Amino acid sequence: MAKRTPHKPEEGRRRVLITNVTPELDGGRYPIKRTPGEAVRVEADVLLDGRDVPACLLLHRVAGRKAWREVPMIPLVNDRWFAQFLTDEEADYEYTILCWINRFETWRRDTLKKVDAGLDVKADLLEGALQLRQAAAGAPAKAASRLRAAAKCFEGSAPEAQVESLNDPVLSSFMLQHDERRFASHYSKVLRVQVDRPRAAAGAWYEMFPRSAALEPGRHGTLRDCIRLLPYVAGMGFDVLYLPPVHPIGGTGRKGKNNTLAARPGDPGSPWAIGSAEGGHQAVAPELGTLDDFCALVSQANRNGLEVALDIAFQCSPNHPWVTEHPDWFYRRPDGSIHHAENPPKKYEDIYPINFECDSWPQLWEALRDIFLFWYRQGVRIFRVDNPHTKPFDFWEWCLADVRARCPGAIFLSEAFTRPKIMYHLAKIGFTQSYTYFAWRNTRWELTEYFKELSSPPVSEFFRPSLWTNTPDILTEYLQAGGRPAFAVRFLLASTLGANYGIYGPAFELMQNRPREHGSEEYLDSEKYEIRSWDRESPGSLRGLITRINEIRRENPALLTQKSLKFHPTDNEYLLAYSKRNAGGDNIILTVVNLDPHYRQSGWIDLDLEELGIDTETFQVHDLLGGGRYLWSGSRNYVELDPQMLPGHVLKVLGRARREGDFDYYD
Amino acid sequence: MAKRTPHKPEEGRRRVLITNVTPELDGGRYPIKRTPGEAVRVEADVLLDGRDVPACLLLHRVAGRKAWREVPMIPLVNDRWFAQFLTDEEADYEYTILCWINRFETWRRDTLKKVDAGLDVKADLLEGALQLRQAAAGAPAKAASRLRAAAKCFEGSAPEAQVESLNDPVLSSFMLQHDERRFASHYSKVLRVQVDRPRAAAGAWYEMFPRSAALEPGRHGTLRDCIRLLPYVAGMGFDVLYLPPVHPIGGTGRKGKNNTLAARPGDPGSPWAIGSAEGGHQAVAPELGTLDDFCALVSQANRNGLEVALDIAFQCSPNHPWVTEHPDWFYRRPDGSIHHAENPPKKYEDIYPINFECDSWPQLWEALRDIFLFWYRQGVRIFRVDNPHTKPFDFWEWCLADVRARCPGAIFLSEAFTRPKIMYHLAKIGFTQSYTYFAWRNTRWELTEYFKELSSPPVSEFFRPSLWTNTPDILTEYLQAGGRPAFAVRFLLASTLGANYGIYGPAFELMQNRPREHGSEEYLDSEKYEIRSWDRESPGSLRGLITRINEIRRENPALLTQKSLKFHPTDNEYLLAYSKRNAGGDNIILTVVNLDPHYRQSGWIDLDLEELGIDTETFQVHDLLGGGRYLWSGSRNYVELDPQMLPGHVLKVLGRARREGDFDYYD
Repeated sequence: MAKRTPHKPEEGRRRVLITNVTPELDGGRYPIKRTPGEAVRVEADVLLDGRDVPACLLLHRVAGRKAWREVPMIPLVNDRWFAQFLTDEEADYEYTILCWINRFETWRRDTLKKVDAGLDVKADLLEGALQLRQAAAGAPAKAASRLRAAAKCFEGSAPEAQVESLNDPVLSSFMLQHDERRFASHYSKVLRVQVDRPRAAAGAWYEMFPRSAALEPGRHGTLRDCIRLLPYVAGMGFDVLYLPPVHPIGGTGRKGKNNTLAARPGDPGSPWAIGSAEGGHQAVAPELGTLDDFCALVSQANRNGLEVALDIAFQCSPNHPWVTEHPDWFYRRPDGSIHHAENPPKKYEDIYPINFECDSWPQLWEALRDIFLFWYRQGVRIFRVDNPHTKPFDFWEWCLADVRARCPGAIFLSEAFTRPKIMYHLAKIGFTQSYTYFAWRNTRWELTEYFKELSSPPVSEFFRPSLWTNTPDILTEYLQAGGRPAFAVRFLLASTLGANYGIYGPAFELMQNRPREHGSEEYLDSEKYEIRSWDRESPGSLRGLITRINEIRRENPALLTQKSLKFHPTDNEYLLAYSKRNAGGDNIILTVVNLDPHYRQSGWIDLDLEELGIDTETFQVHDLLGGGRYLWSGSRNYVELDPQMLPGHVLKVLGRARREGDFDYYD
Repeated sequence: MAKRTPHKPEEGRRRVLITNVTPELDGGRYPIKRTPGEAVRVEADVLLDGRDVPACLLLHRVAGRKAWREVPMIPLVNDRWFAQFLTDEEADYEYTILCWINRFETWRRDTLKKVDAGLDVKADLLEGALQLRQAAAGAPAKAASRLRAAAKCFEGSAPEAQVESLNDPVLSSFMLQHDERRFASHYSKVLRVQVDRPRAAAGAWYEMFPRSAALEPGRHGTLRDCIRLLPYVAGMGFDVLYLPPVHPIGGTGRKGKNNTLAARPGDPGSPWAIGSAEGGHQAVAPELGTLDDFCALVSQANRNGLEVALDIAFQCSPNHPWVTEHPDWFYRRPDGSIHHAENPPKKYEDIYPINFECDSWPQLWEALRDIFLFWYRQGVRIFRVDNPHTKPFDFWEWCLADVRARCPGAIFLSEAFTRPKIMYHLAKIGFTQSYTYFAWRNTRWELTEYFKELSSPPVSEFFRPSLWTNTPDILTEYLQAGGRPAFAVRFLLASTLGANYGIYGPAFELMQNRPREHGSEEYLDSEKYEIRSWDRESPGSLRGLITRINEIRRENPALLTQKSLKFHPTDNEYLLAYSKRNAGGDNIILTVVNLDPHYRQSGWIDLDLEELGIDTETFQVHDLLGGGRYLWSGSRNYVELDPQMLPGHVLKVLGRARREGDFDYYD
């Protein structure tokens, strides 16, 4: 078969190739994520033929604006260049790269080499002068006069002055700016940055069931009861109050206490079995109160420094209005009956999944999108999305982008406990934050490997981890077995490893640790199926520790970062050491945790002193949790932790310890 | 700034996402390379929502044909799938991936789980039957009858028969084939394979200067003299005879012996200073003979089992006809003079580089392309391209594709000794083979790291290394210092590490090792600037070793592969051990080299027995070079090599050694 001969390019004189750009997700298909003030460091391979010097600019702008801002890129090694820019506005950004042959720099380098070798450079200097005069013709007055002065110098000044001009960095900078940029190569893609508000990057979440908010045991809690509990939650220093679904609960197939098949009269059912004659996803369950109550809760929460996050679960009870209004939105069997949810051999008789393969999918997508819009109008800015991995990716990509465009500040937390690539993909297609495997990572190796992956590119470019100690579905074996120290350790880890973290309370602070049965991660007498009454003022509560650590988080911006996380080696497997630093580098926190809830553990830590900003032999660290101050020396230092006393140290690195020479009387 | 809301996709029900496909070079921008009979193993991440099973097909075809061939992909771990196909024709191939929801497999898996759990599956079986009948409607007769029989079985046979049908792999395969493939996802790209002829993948090259081909000392050698030397070259077992440029050499700025600035009368000049009044790149230097002589050499070489490779160097002497015919193809200084080539402070007064930024670049490109076409018409099928990294990438990409389309079987060797990413990029844009850093890789660590990189993806997908012991520009320190053993070691390494390798002779086999000066890699009295006379029949020649190793290469297809290269650990840094296997796996060669040219070295090798195809305790290896046979046992075996005797072992792995039970009399 004869092969077709190729066409020549329209312009065959573009000699610079830009490739292997980072960050770039899936060939630029998805945006990276930032919050205002964060930097985007861009690197690229810049390849060209021959010995010429390339000119490389990083271009960036707020999406939708016309003009690009330019940052000169700097060569690293092996044909790799870099530059960075700050995302100062809460808007989407774009960036790309522009390169061309830097004739002036090429000439400058070669001429300097000839000067060094003692060669005659008269003809060379005239070439440079010509370049300068050409550039001056298109430059504004101030630059033009500088360029012409240099040209004049090369045309006939003393050799010393000429060499000085050759080495003048201002000249190089003007020439880069005012070069005609002949045959410039644009990188083939314009890459995107999604800039979210700061809460997207850091926050402490508290999950609770409104049904158990009543102060009187046995009464069904209401949204008004939740308002009364706001000082309790805010007092512990949380930022977000997250509520499971608040909608009417179906009666058909309703589950009883401890997930039994037959509900007894008075059993409230699972809040995730959404919809009844009283309404669907845009209604409030009458037993919780009214929509007005909900709005009151949202505004009262705000007054307490809390945001309300609402659970959005796209599934229906058999009594949901949609089941009759939109029968095609559900799967039907050949006999006409509707498929309930299942994971064979498990069945979920109280839930119908949604059929995204229906013919009226465009209407379905809009109806689902409208649920976000409705609750946004009621003041909700944060959505915790239930099981997003069981709905199509294309739906999410459209829905989240549509809601973001209409609802400034909307944040979406992906509750997908599934395979890693699926979790990552959901983050790429628009989820702001994501649940993680944190709950099941207990050993030093597990925690180190997992959090290195989460805190480094490419994952850190798009996936914001949210670390949960427990959820209504997850009571881990570690918490079941380890007593109070286990709860303290897991809280300390979640709140210091994660810029975003959460607890499900009051089960957590009251250290509920009994599973429904051996080998299960379900809580015994779970609030998912019944009303619980909690003694929130119990003297044994972890409330004090939680309050203190949230205080430390607010005082130390280092802890509100994720990408700065670095691990430090220890010689005891039960000791985990890691540090974080803020963008300015003036706040550095080193956390050391004893992962063993049973025994005292001690050992040596090998500190990366550069990471900690230490350049002296001796330095002080201040334990913000335990209160102690330690004078440390060099990179190897000793730590001893008793789980009955303290789960770990949260050490503020204070830098150089003062010595005799630091005091007035020394001189 | 208000954000724009996104559009819905045209079809919102495609639920499968195909991503992270390998091999894929720069987002599919460049083809991977193969030779006929080689496999292309394709992997991809296949992601979808929920618990459904995806159907995944690898599609491939010869480019230009309409129909795709389909290969079912098989799941590995972590949502990764794979399949492979063979490139059986010497043509370009295309491949891509097609996925959709495999409703039948999803149903089959879930129904089997329910059967295992003892649940009633009557309604489920009816669903499966419906699917089978739907598929049967669109299937050819034989498949349709099988599908209908299964449907009937699910509609009412005995449970045992139904379970048997559920487990029937033929049914699954028919359903995959005849599924309606609703809402299928095509991978967004069609990826390409460039399939070259076998010589692209493996060959032994011999470089020589025709000017030194005369038998009588002092006379300028001719192309006719080269014909007389063909039996000498072919007798050593080489496949390719590579000649430096054969064109008229310029007189202006001509270099004298040992690269002196002033040539003396009779000095022949550098063959790379191309062009004189006698012609340019399409002429033969009169002192070498005529174009007819050249064609005679090509055809005589072919009769000796040799191909002639010609050097293509796109640069001109000041006397090249183009300098007057196309003045705009050269760089001019402000004073109107033409820039000679330079690498400040070094100057090349006998060479003008070509100005690819000229306005008439389309004509220039065609003129350069025509040089390849001209020599192809004279019978040349292999081109060694001089310094391609000093000409624009876009030119090469067009030129090589254009020549390949017009000239079946054309092979291009890239002579770019430059930075690694540039070398790799030249391979991506169309060069068939590439020179490497082999000449300067001497230690075990250097050789292991470098050849692991070259023999593994992604590099091995597009870069075919050519290993040269020496070139007219490169007489390495190792050869200068190590005496005869050094030449033997480097030859053994080149010819067994590299499927493609070359030597520059007779300097190599006659072990020329004197540099022009201390610290230089230039040969003293280099043929680049003068005629040399060689005693090719010298008893001290390495010819015997070369002949034997080329014989071994021809007898052992393992050595003609590159990607199969695997290193085996040794406990002595001077011992390098590596193996190769052919595609069938029935030819396995283990090479062990003593990298120390001075001392006897011994040590233990830790063999990867699986890689060697060994599954027994004891096995035999036969040294094809030294002749010895060794009975080896287990993975650790002892080796001792004296550089004065033998540079290494080339061991054919013979597999299981026979034991008592293998003989008739044992039973």
